[in-house]
Parts: sequence; C-alpha cells; structure tokens
Amino acid sequence: MAESRGTLARRGEHAFLDRLCDRLRAADREAGSARGIVVGPGDDAAVVEPGRRPLAVTTDALVEGVHFRPGWLRPEELGARAIAVNLSDLAAMGASPRWTLVAAIVPPDFSTSDLDRILDACATASEEAGAAMIGGNLSRGDALSLTVTAVGAVEERALERRGARPGDRLVVTGTLGAAAAAVDVWLDGGEPPPALRERFARPVARLAAGRALAAAGARAAIDVSDGLLADLGHVARASGVDIDVDPDAFEVAEPLTAVASAYGTQPLRWVLAGGDDHALAATFPDDAVLPEGFVVVGRVGAATEDPVVTVAGAPWTLDAGHDHFR
Amino acid sequence: MAESRGTLARRGEHAFLDRLCDRLRAADREAGSARGIVVGPGDDAAVVEPGRRPLAVTTDALVEGVHFRPGWLRPEELGARAIAVNLSDLAAMGASPRWTLVAAIVPPDFSTSDLDRILDACATASEEAGAAMIGGNLSRGDALSLTVTAVGAVEERALERRGARPGDRLVVTGTLGAAAAAVDVWLDGGEPPPALRERFARPVARLAAGRALAAAGARAAIDVSDGLLADLGHVARASGVDIDVDPDAFEVAEPLTAVASAYGTQPLRWVLAGGDDHALAATFPDDAVLPEGFVVVGRVGAATEDPVVTVAGAPWTLDAGHDHFR
Repeated sequence: MAESRGTLARRGEHAFLDRLCDRLRAADREAGSARGIVVGPGDDAAVVEPGRRPLAVTTDALVEGVHFRPGWLRPEELGARAIAVNLSDLAAMGASPRWTLVAAIVPPDFSTSDLDRILDACATASEEAGAAMIGGNLSRGDALSLTVTAVGAVEERALERRGARPGDRLVVTGTLGAAAAAVDVWLDGGEPPPALRERFARPVARLAAGRALAAAGARAAIDVSDGLLADLGHVARASGVDIDVDPDAFEVAEPLTAVASAYGTQPLRWVLAGGDDHALAATFPDDAVLPEGFVVVGRVGAATEDPVVTVAGAPWTLDAGHDHFR
Repeated sequence: MAESRGTLARRGEHAFLDRLCDRLRAADREAGSARGIVVGPGDDAAVVEPGRRPLAVTTDALVEGVHFRPGWLRPEELGARAIAVNLSDLAAMGASPRWTLVAAIVPPDFSTSDLDRILDACATASEEAGAAMIGGNLSRGDALSLTVTAVGAVEERALERRGARPGDRLVVTGTLGAAAAAVDVWLDGGEPPPALRERFARPVARLAAGRALAAAGARAAIDVSDGLLADLGHVARASGVDIDVDPDAFEVAEPLTAVASAYGTQPLRWVLAGGDDHALAATFPDDAVLPEGFVVVGRVGAATEDPVVTVAGAPWTLDAGHDHFR
C-alpha cells in the first residue's frame, strides 16, 4: 500500500530528498554542470546526460544481520561502506563513478538523526569518488538495509571476468584478510584492533587502480568481495582456465598475524578465503608492464572445461585441526 | 560479512545471475544489439551503450508487510509489480525504459521456486516494456523486499513536476481508486473483486501516455502512487501554484461503487486519496491539444508561496461520519 498512510517513513523520504537536493545544489555550484545532471533528486526520476562513454551499472545491498550487525559500524561508516562496495564493482570494470542512488529500508523506530548520518555519508562518499547521489528511496521495514545502485563511465575499456588466458600472471592490489578477520573477531564477541576494524568499516574502492588495470592491458579483473579463492573461481569459470595461487606471495602483516595467533588460526584463512576487503584481482599477459601497487600472487593455468582454483598446485583446505573458528 | 559463508542466498544469486544471462542471450538473439548491452549480467557490473538521449534513473522498493502482505500477490505478480512501479516513474518523466536491475532481499527459508518465479516475472515485465534486465543482487534478510532500479531514455523532453502554470488544465490518464480499494478490502480481511485486485496486482505503467504527454506539450507530470491529492501536492509545491480538483470529473465505475457501498464509504476516498494505481497526472496550457485517453479533472490556480490542493474550491476531507475505514 502507499506509504502515504501516515507513516514517518514517507515524510522521512521527502525530508531526505529535500536534503539531497540541497546538497546537490551546493555541490553543483562548485562543480558546474560537469556532473551532467538535468533533473536532480525529488522528481519521479533523476535525468542525466550520459556522455559518450559506455556506462557500467551495478547494484549491491548491505543488510543488517547479514552483512553487518548492530554495534559494528557507526552510521557514517555504514553509509560510506554501502557506497564503497558498489564503487569497488565499478573499479573492477575499469569505470569512473558518475551517479549513485540509495534505497534504504528502515525500521519505524530507527533514529532519524542516525538515518540522516547514514544518508549524508552516502552522499559524501559518492562525492569523494567524483559521483553525485542523484536519487533514493526510503521505505519502512523490519530490518535496516541499504541498496545502492552505482553508474560509472568506462573510460578505456570494460574489464571483464572472462578474459584470463593460460600463462597470465595473477595480481592483486590492496592487502587481503583484514576485514574478514575483523568480522570473525566481532562474531566471536571481541573488538577487532583498529587497523583491522578500519578495513571493514572504511573499505577503499580502488578506482584509480581499476583504471590503471584497463590502461595497462589487464585481461580479466574482479572485485574481491567474497574471498579471493571464491572470486577467482568466478574468473576461472568465466574464462575457462585453471588458476593457481602462490600462498607465499602475500604480505601478511600485523595485526593480522597477532590476531591469528591469539585465536590459534592461520592468517591465510582470511587472506585467501575471507571477503569484504574489496581489493582488486586481475590477470596480465607476461609481457605487460604491471601498474604500480599490484603484486603478483599466482598464475593462470591451462584452458579447461572444468576450471579449478588451486593453492601451490593443490586444492586449498584450512589446516583446521585446532582452528578456533571452525 | 561476505555471503560466501555457506549461505543459500549466495549460491542462489549465482543461479539467478546465470538464469538472467541465459534469458538475455535468448532475448538478444531476437533483439540483436539494439539493447546496447556490452557486458550482460554476471560480471562486477553490467556495461551498456547509453546512446545520445538523456537518461532517466529511478529506484523504488516493494517491502513485504509495508507495500504488500503475504497472500495478496502471486510471485509473478509481485515481480511484475516491482518493475511496473518503477516504469511508471519513467513514464511520468516521458522516458522509454531501457534497462532494469533488481536487488532482492529474501528470507533464508523462502521457496527457491517462488523466487525464480518472482525474478522471471521481473525480467518478463522489463522485456514487455522494451527494457532488458541487466543485473541484480540477492541477499538474505528477515523480510522479503524487491528494490528495482530502472533506466530509461528521454525521447522528447523530461517532464518535471515544477512546470505547472496558473490556468493550466489538470488531466489524468487511467481510472483511479481501484488499487487502493483492493488494499482496504484485504486489510479488512476480505478478498477484493478481481477487477480491483488486478489493478493492484498488475498495474500498467503508462509509457505511451507519458511520451504522448511530452510530445503534446504537458507542462508538468507526476506518477500517481501516493494518492492523487498527495501527489498533486508535490506538483503544487514544486511549481509554486494552487491546484483545484473537480470531484465530479472522475469516472467512478463498478465494482468500485459497489465495494464502497458495501463498506459504507465513498468511492472518492479511493479516487482522490488512495495510492497504488500508478496513473499519470499532468497539466496542460489551455491551447494545447490533449493526447487521447486523458481526462480533464481540474485546473491550476494562482501562483503562490504557500501552495494548496483543493477539491471544488475547498480543502478535501472525507465525510467520515460513518466510514468503515476510519
């Protein structure tokens, strides 16, 4: 039924859209018409001038109780993370963010000031990445969720998952494992060290790195959100190739090692199987010059109809004998 | 945390995206490259060729327990409605749908075959409107919700809410009130007559009507989703004008009158204040020739800093003396 039936959510939506309009007007005074916005938030739809480049479009949600739990994130962090996980998908396509939309589902008793902080953070995180938040939607619901749609311009060429070829080097940017370790510590009832917590609470979409991948001739790329091995599985299946990961190639630094030691587990569990870092993985032909900041962590194997991802040549299994988290 | 932690939802998402890829491949064999899809579903983001026209972008959610309740809609209807309410926003801008994305939040015990039926219906409803469903997201969550993002091309010019001018005729297309009456009957524990139920379950986005509005010189337009008077309030405030509605101008037909009579209420409550029909309302200068299918139902009043919407010159209040629903 229409939200007009006297709910706070509907009044809240208009307040939210008004706020968004004000922000955009202020931002537009600085940015001029560079953002391509013909009709801003608050109408039936936003209208934008797309420009000549192909557009990358993605949508991803953060759901309370599934992707985060109450108490893990401050409202600002939740909003920024909801934007970042989407921008990371654009980065993995080699695209530059242009516009975002945020559809929030919010419990009726949710603090309106916390909601303002979340939505302001969504707008700020969009702006910091060069994008304008052009619309949104606010609905009541039992559990808090933020569904973001992000649109970006593909500057060079789109980086797909299916381009990996036998012999390619496998590279990653950004260290891995910190966010997943933070989640495990939280789930265990602890409070993660700030350096790990930050990686979950404030992931950085690797936008410049994504564009650099495209410019340098990467053959395939993916956002590492489900865990490196799982995400490489997508690349392997899309490309029809095996992929082998070198477990000794990863930088595993404090406090990840200390936390692993304290919990009696191996840091590699988080590096290889943990998600949420939003690093980028890509493959390059041998003769390409790697862009700065990428580390070679493996190699693409043979073409195959039944692709597998291995670690040092074998299927990876955690030495789970005395692993605290299993 | 990453959905990779062994949940059905993540496996379901890949199955869903695979299904979507198959559908699009089949559809593309028919449509050729007319849809402008460079990279289809299943990568980090879809990539599309935007073309030269401005793009209208909107997002709207259907949340179980808020916008519908269990038992009201079949899975096919839910999917089609989620798309239609978004396409109606595009229609109100004068835009033609090109691409949709669907982010579903689904309880862990939700029937996977019902989910398939929902998502298939989203794809079918998109295709029937000339759009391709290029992506999606699937997350676990306590309550079912569907958040759709729709992108359309503005063919003629964008219809905004702010263009209404004193003396304009107010027009609507589509009869009003049926969907809201169906909802009230459901909320009362009854089963609405099929003709009313259908208007809620299968709303028709007035896409051709929206383009006709733009071509015929409409000054302002809006999707009637919150109820005509509430939505006209948006037009009035955005345009800085009063609007007066003629209560005798509306076609009020069976079974709306019969249901109103049975419940001891007035059909106008649903026509003027009920939402969910997704008709279009617009304003036209006096000398414009109205496109077919639009009915004049009022007039734009004076420019004002404190806009109000009136019915026959007075603020509208339901004669609630013996109204069953109040």
